[in-house]
Amino acid sequence: MSTIRDVANRANVCVATVSRMLNKPEMVSQSTRKRILAAMEELNYHPNEMARSLSTKRTHIIGVIIPNTSLPLFGALADAIESSCADNGYKLLLCGSRGNADKESSMMAMLLANKVDGIILCASLRNPDAYMNIDLPIVSVDRIIPNIPSVSCDNFKGGVLAARELIDSGCRYPVIVNNVPGTQTTAIMRSKGYKYECERLGYEYREIILTNEQFFDCEFDAITDAMKNPDYPVDGIFITGDTHAANLKRFCARRGLETPRDYKLIGFDGTDLMDYLDLSTISVPIVELGALAVELLIKRIEKQSVPERSLLPASLIRRSSTSKDA
Amino acid sequence: MSTIRDVANRANVCVATVSRMLNKPEMVSQSTRKRILAAMEELNYHPNEMARSLSTKRTHIIGVIIPNTSLPLFGALADAIESSCADNGYKLLLCGSRGNADKESSMMAMLLANKVDGIILCASLRNPDAYMNIDLPIVSVDRIIPNIPSVSCDNFKGGVLAARELIDSGCRYPVIVNNVPGTQTTAIMRSKGYKYECERLGYEYREIILTNEQFFDCEFDAITDAMKNPDYPVDGIFITGDTHAANLKRFCARRGLETPRDYKLIGFDGTDLMDYLDLSTISVPIVELGALAVELLIKRIEKQSVPERSLLPASLIRRSSTSKDA
Repeated sequence: MSTIRDVANRANVCVATVSRMLNKPEMVSQSTRKRILAAMEELNYHPNEMARSLSTKRTHIIGVIIPNTSLPLFGALADAIESSCADNGYKLLLCGSRGNADKESSMMAMLLANKVDGIILCASLRNPDAYMNIDLPIVSVDRIIPNIPSVSCDNFKGGVLAARELIDSGCRYPVIVNNVPGTQTTAIMRSKGYKYECERLGYEYREIILTNEQFFDCEFDAITDAMKNPDYPVDGIFITGDTHAANLKRFCARRGLETPRDYKLIGFDGTDLMDYLDLSTISVPIVELGALAVELLIKRIEKQSVPERSLLPASLIRRSSTSKDA
Repeated sequence: MSTIRDVANRANVCVATVSRMLNKPEMVSQSTRKRILAAMEELNYHPNEMARSLSTKRTHIIGVIIPNTSLPLFGALADAIESSCADNGYKLLLCGSRGNADKESSMMAMLLANKVDGIILCASLRNPDAYMNIDLPIVSVDRIIPNIPSVSCDNFKGGVLAARELIDSGCRYPVIVNNVPGTQTTAIMRSKGYKYECERLGYEYREIILTNEQFFDCEFDAITDAMKNPDYPVDGIFITGDTHAANLKRFCARRGLETPRDYKLIGFDGTDLMDYLDLSTISVPIVELGALAVELLIKRIEKQSVPERSLLPASLIRRSSTSKDA
């Protein structure tokens, strides 16, 4: 393998010049620069970025902590972040937390030890203290953490749009299907928006709470039971996640219940899956979210100030599952 | 921020001992080790892995070059690779190539410059020479590249299973929908297996070739036209990719054609999407593929020999789109 000395010899300059060219190219004349680049190319020389980072104190590596890229939303988010990093000359260390708070903490320590320049965090929020005293630029995606800038979708507005769509499509007994209340600011804001709009339009606010296990195992009997409740026969469902909406549609179909004939259904995320299933959803601008997270993180790395909270608009994608004429 | 010197002072040892403990912990007595770890914890000290890697000549970073994690198959593959890396004490640099050969080459150079310990490559194969003279352990996923160990699904067997399933479900005029022939060994083997089984069972081998653009824009008129061809009225379709299968199902549904009534359909990949759409598919063992790629790469990094080719079994997932009683 070629060394910096080989390059210097070939280009007929001293080692210090090659080093200068790698770290501060503007300080080397254009003709010398060209000669060194040609020598690097001929010798197939790759400067040791790791060694360089020790002197520049920059690795140009960003770490991302994200639950799981095999879920459509996070796969798309990782892709958007990676693409935006590459466009800006940064590399991306991918850490899959599976929403496990312990894993998150050890990944945080690993990223610190590897001297990444900054972290994009899609946190489980089970121990928010863990993120508070990190001596490194962090940007949080779709989670509110004190003292850390966040970018998120306007989840409140998304909840408003979902409630309005169910009611506009003729539902008289709408319901929101929620996770057990936790620290997930995303879910909290979606449900607040939904509640606000229901009450504004003169409808009752009703929710069905499921455990993580029930969501995971697709145990949706509580929902189909509620459809048969004579006091409040649920006819419209807002379930805050596309995968959950897809699972629910399948669960209902196996019991002979179809959208929009027997009930209306709207999800949240805006993934392609909803298009294939002809399901309405609230769309999260995921590519823009990823790009903005990278932009803000780079600004923070460069010691520029950034807004504490950035909200990107949620929008309604209407499909047959909330069509009126059923 | 604390330094190694602070840790040494707090633990009442010399700097060399802390350094030894970080690099060769087995050479430090247990009581000293405990004292140093406690000091590191108290001082919130994170050893500089980057600096350490310069002396150990190992970064414990693996690079992965993969088209796009927003596609279900690659999102799942990235997740499997990341998870397996983490289990083995490696970190993952994620590079999204979008199947662009130029991007792939520059990512390869970037990974070399960053002194990753090895690369997992899901290559576009548009310029296989680019991968041949890399002075670094590489493992290729689902692509055959000379002199590089590969792990892949048994794509030939997958093609065999798809042909047999269409014929078993009663198709008399099966067809394979293929990409313009290229260097994609994956697609070539699937189509060879399909052809082999068709001919073995006494059926004609027919294919419909579409361009990348036609796949991307879901221009499937050639397929629906073929269904109306009186000489060979296509009644069974093997399309080598789940997303393509989903797109085709939607395209046909908009023209009043439904599976299994009007045609049988089988995809390839085995992603969750097929379950939601009730479509048969050939399943790629993606978690096992990712784990095996990491295992082989680590063996190569540790200078152990590994098999040149590893094939994991493909399997049929039967759903209503290839059911007989339609």
